Amino acid sequence: MVGAEIERLIQLLAKLPGLGPRSSRRAALHLIKHRERLLEPLAAALRSAADAIRTCSTCCNIDTGDPCAICRDPRRDASIVCVVEEVADLWAIERSGSFSGRYHVLGGTLSALDGRGPEDLNIEKLLARAAAPEVREIILATSATVEGQTTAHYLGDRLARTKVMVSRLAHGVPVGGELDYLDDGTLTAALKARRPV
Amino acid sequence: MVGAEIERLIQLLAKLPGLGPRSSRRAALHLIKHRERLLEPLAAALRSAADAIRTCSTCCNIDTGDPCAICRDPRRDASIVCVVEEVADLWAIERSGSFSGRYHVLGGTLSALDGRGPEDLNIEKLLARAAAPEVREIILATSATVEGQTTAHYLGDRLARTKVMVSRLAHGVPVGGELDYLDDGTLTAALKARRPV
Repeated sequence: MVGAEIERLIQLLAKLPGLGPRSSRRAALHLIKHRERLLEPLAAALRSAADAIRTCSTCCNIDTGDPCAICRDPRRDASIVCVVEEVADLWAIERSGSFSGRYHVLGGTLSALDGRGPEDLNIEKLLARAAAPEVREIILATSATVEGQTTAHYLGDRLARTKVMVSRLAHGVPVGGELDYLDDGTLTAALKARRPV
Repeated sequence: MVGAEIERLIQLLAKLPGLGPRSSRRAALHLIKHRERLLEPLAAALRSAADAIRTCSTCCNIDTGDPCAICRDPRRDASIVCVVEEVADLWAIERSGSFSGRYHVLGGTLSALDGRGPEDLNIEKLLARAAAPEVREIILATSATVEGQTTAHYLGDRLARTKVMVSRLAHGVPVGGELDYLDDGTLTAALKARRPV
């Protein structure tokens, strides 16, 4: 007894991460109930996002311009490139406010299981950037998962033939983390990388 | 470093029930990453929902036509009207497949706390329907919450002056429910309403 338009909206909303069949129904009703305040603006925002958003041809970040705002910004240090898996990781580092270089978004990790090889990631573009004279250091900021580590290892091999310095994020106890709740791998890494005070 | 279009999209997604600030960022990235498969179709679905969806002038259900498909359907029993708080409740009863009459959507409950009085709900329309010759029974299917019960009580009073029969949903042990986990109110109601086997 639900119209085709509503049914289609529910099905599309259910594809969003975090929304299941039941919560997508609730979301659809919420949208319809708040037509002026939410449904119309969201329809317009999605439309303008679909029209405006580009993938940066330099770093594969997403933005409304190409090159993206970070690649365009002359105040950002072009000599350091931080390699991340996804745009979400770039956003996370930007929120921390602790990095003022440029980025390179791989678009995922290598994965034998999912059949993702080097040709499926933005690796050739990264190697081209590594060959540019202004780039001095490349930080491999992939996840500390098996696939993230595999990808970093592969990139380290490929970049070893270039003249850039390659670095990794430090492993250790997260700030605010209690030792009691940490996994063995993190504790081992934190002990190995201990520093004199 | 997030473009204005993306920021606006994230803010609007965060207003959906079930999505917070973090999950709305993930949802926005997911949409942008799957532009053809998800972003474009969702933008179109929201647009057509905004254009097509009407509130039924009879029962206040939402649908793409007015009157809605249920009010239009001649096979549905026009002599029984089931009064629900929200369209979501109507959908829930329809999914159960156990009701073949018509509905009336109140649009919420009476609430002294939130300042919702009878004039904020679709009550006048319900009284007008109760006065129609074909309506014989009105089922008050509001929630078993304090506000739902208050609303049902108020409606019962108003409808007592008409010639229709007024009924309520039965209270009792939910099917599949274990007694051990039930609240006292439900147990008391189930005992009171016990039936001979």
